[in-house]
Amino acid sequence: MNLSPKSATAVSSRQAIEILRPCSKIAIITHYRPDGDAIGSMLALAASLQEWGKEVVCINRDPVPAYLDFLQTEQTFVCAPDTADLNGVELVVALDCATIERLGDSAVSLLPDVPVITIDHHITNEEYGDHLILDATSAATGEILYQIISENNLPLPTLSRDALYVAISTDTGSLQYSNATARTYSIMAQLVDAGVDVAHINSQTYFNHSVRKVELLRECLQSFSLSHDGQVSHWTISQAAQSEIGAQPGDMEGLMDILRGISGVRVCFTLEESSSGAVRLSMRSKDDLVDVSKICGHFGGGGHRMAAGAAINLPLEDCLQQVLAVTEKAL
Amino acid sequence: MNLSPKSATAVSSRQAIEILRPCSKIAIITHYRPDGDAIGSMLALAASLQEWGKEVVCINRDPVPAYLDFLQTEQTFVCAPDTADLNGVELVVALDCATIERLGDSAVSLLPDVPVITIDHHITNEEYGDHLILDATSAATGEILYQIISENNLPLPTLSRDALYVAISTDTGSLQYSNATARTYSIMAQLVDAGVDVAHINSQTYFNHSVRKVELLRECLQSFSLSHDGQVSHWTISQAAQSEIGAQPGDMEGLMDILRGISGVRVCFTLEESSSGAVRLSMRSKDDLVDVSKICGHFGGGGHRMAAGAAINLPLEDCLQQVLAVTEKAL
Repeated sequence: MNLSPKSATAVSSRQAIEILRPCSKIAIITHYRPDGDAIGSMLALAASLQEWGKEVVCINRDPVPAYLDFLQTEQTFVCAPDTADLNGVELVVALDCATIERLGDSAVSLLPDVPVITIDHHITNEEYGDHLILDATSAATGEILYQIISENNLPLPTLSRDALYVAISTDTGSLQYSNATARTYSIMAQLVDAGVDVAHINSQTYFNHSVRKVELLRECLQSFSLSHDGQVSHWTISQAAQSEIGAQPGDMEGLMDILRGISGVRVCFTLEESSSGAVRLSMRSKDDLVDVSKICGHFGGGGHRMAAGAAINLPLEDCLQQVLAVTEKAL
Repeated sequence: MNLSPKSATAVSSRQAIEILRPCSKIAIITHYRPDGDAIGSMLALAASLQEWGKEVVCINRDPVPAYLDFLQTEQTFVCAPDTADLNGVELVVALDCATIERLGDSAVSLLPDVPVITIDHHITNEEYGDHLILDATSAATGEILYQIISENNLPLPTLSRDALYVAISTDTGSLQYSNATARTYSIMAQLVDAGVDVAHINSQTYFNHSVRKVELLRECLQSFSLSHDGQVSHWTISQAAQSEIGAQPGDMEGLMDILRGISGVRVCFTLEESSSGAVRLSMRSKDDLVDVSKICGHFGGGGHRMAAGAAINLPLEDCLQQVLAVTEKAL
């Protein structure tokens, strides 16, 4: 397979359709640790191609995350690489995956040596494969797929419609991020017009958390504190509290938005005691002038300017004092 | 003024424009405890009418909630009733207010005896005033106003554009509720096309809360409870706690999403003790089979199927027992 950078030639959506047309069995792959745009795009294209008469196999190193399970109503699309039947595949479509590495070696190793069409919206895409549709002005790969489907009158079955809605919604923070353009909104209007059950699908996607998450939030808020003239907010959570609640990985996901959202806050952080005794620091910046990857770097961690983390081998209370001290210098 | 139920005659948006045309000074009133749709609609219409050459006064029993302050960039729109200059007002526009009572006695008492146009999207609207535009198929009063403005080529200055976006966004839970139709999405696309800074306005609207909000959340979570096999979630907050925190109108906005978002929950509610001693019930449904406007109707309140409220003159603990009992029957 043609999986090296800059190997792909740009094609129009009409040309892509002509490449797909003669193939009777097509594999779709997307990036590992798939998010809403990856899973949504994969299922949407799969259902649309299947309705067009193709046999379709979806493949991913990792399973569908629990919060997106509701989309996977069709049993025909097998995602796990160990169960996928890739015999007879004539074409591979690589969706929403900027780098060859992120396709996942274990999934790639199962693919036959056939042509690859890469479809993506990441400006950093390595342009691997044979044919390329790259549109960085699209908020999501789902937005590109909607245009391919509607411009070429491909079928838009219920699953495609709903999966495209989820793909676009999750990649734009429910249409709240700067990547959501008038075209993005307009495509969502067309999907809703085609019958998306807005309340149901959003409720499934965004309002489906465990009661443990609320219990963790209650516990976190016990230690909530605002310091440095309201510029720093934080909370901590002990291992004992997590144990009592029965916390599972992912339960804390998104809770920091509450700290981050406070007016006037420039930096916020969570200190989470782990079962090993180390303390996990997660930090967010709301201010271009404060680089939290530097603060976390001080503790042997790293990340990006606006989001970073570290693991610190100190008791929780000592950690807190040190993180506050290092943060103070960065303000 | 013609403030009795069923006094208003339905008019088209074109007829409404002809009623507005000869007036040089217009007052706009909306419901007390104004939310995003109330404030957004009020400021949007005010800015549009002002750009059309009218003098405009906005009046409300309560001030603009802090989280919507960012919209109030124009100093010309005085909202508090005690400072509003209503001399010479020739017409009153009542926006987004279903009942005469919710206009607020203290605000209404200042209005001159002039014709009233009522514009609303609540199906329960009492049809007070002289002229009525009532469209319950619109997700927000802001959605009706956008149509009036665009159909009649009224000016859409920046403030109107942004305020309509906020009105529609807040009344649809960021386009996630069942009231958001393809038309709603399409209008948002047109507003974005007209220049809305999507990231900025959403950050201001949803990620700019006061520290009081976090303190109120901490307090609410002390009474957090899940009942009826996990189908009902609620919390309560006393007047004493609100007082200590220094709670202001609007501080509780959006917190109920945490209750609503729990997997398996069909109905959630908040009971908020007010300074008058009455308890404010706010209720949300996640299930088409549970109509919370009926539950709230039992307590003399109302609203929509998925979001409703009531004011109950009972001690907090008695309220809780009664609301749980009525809710149980509705499950």
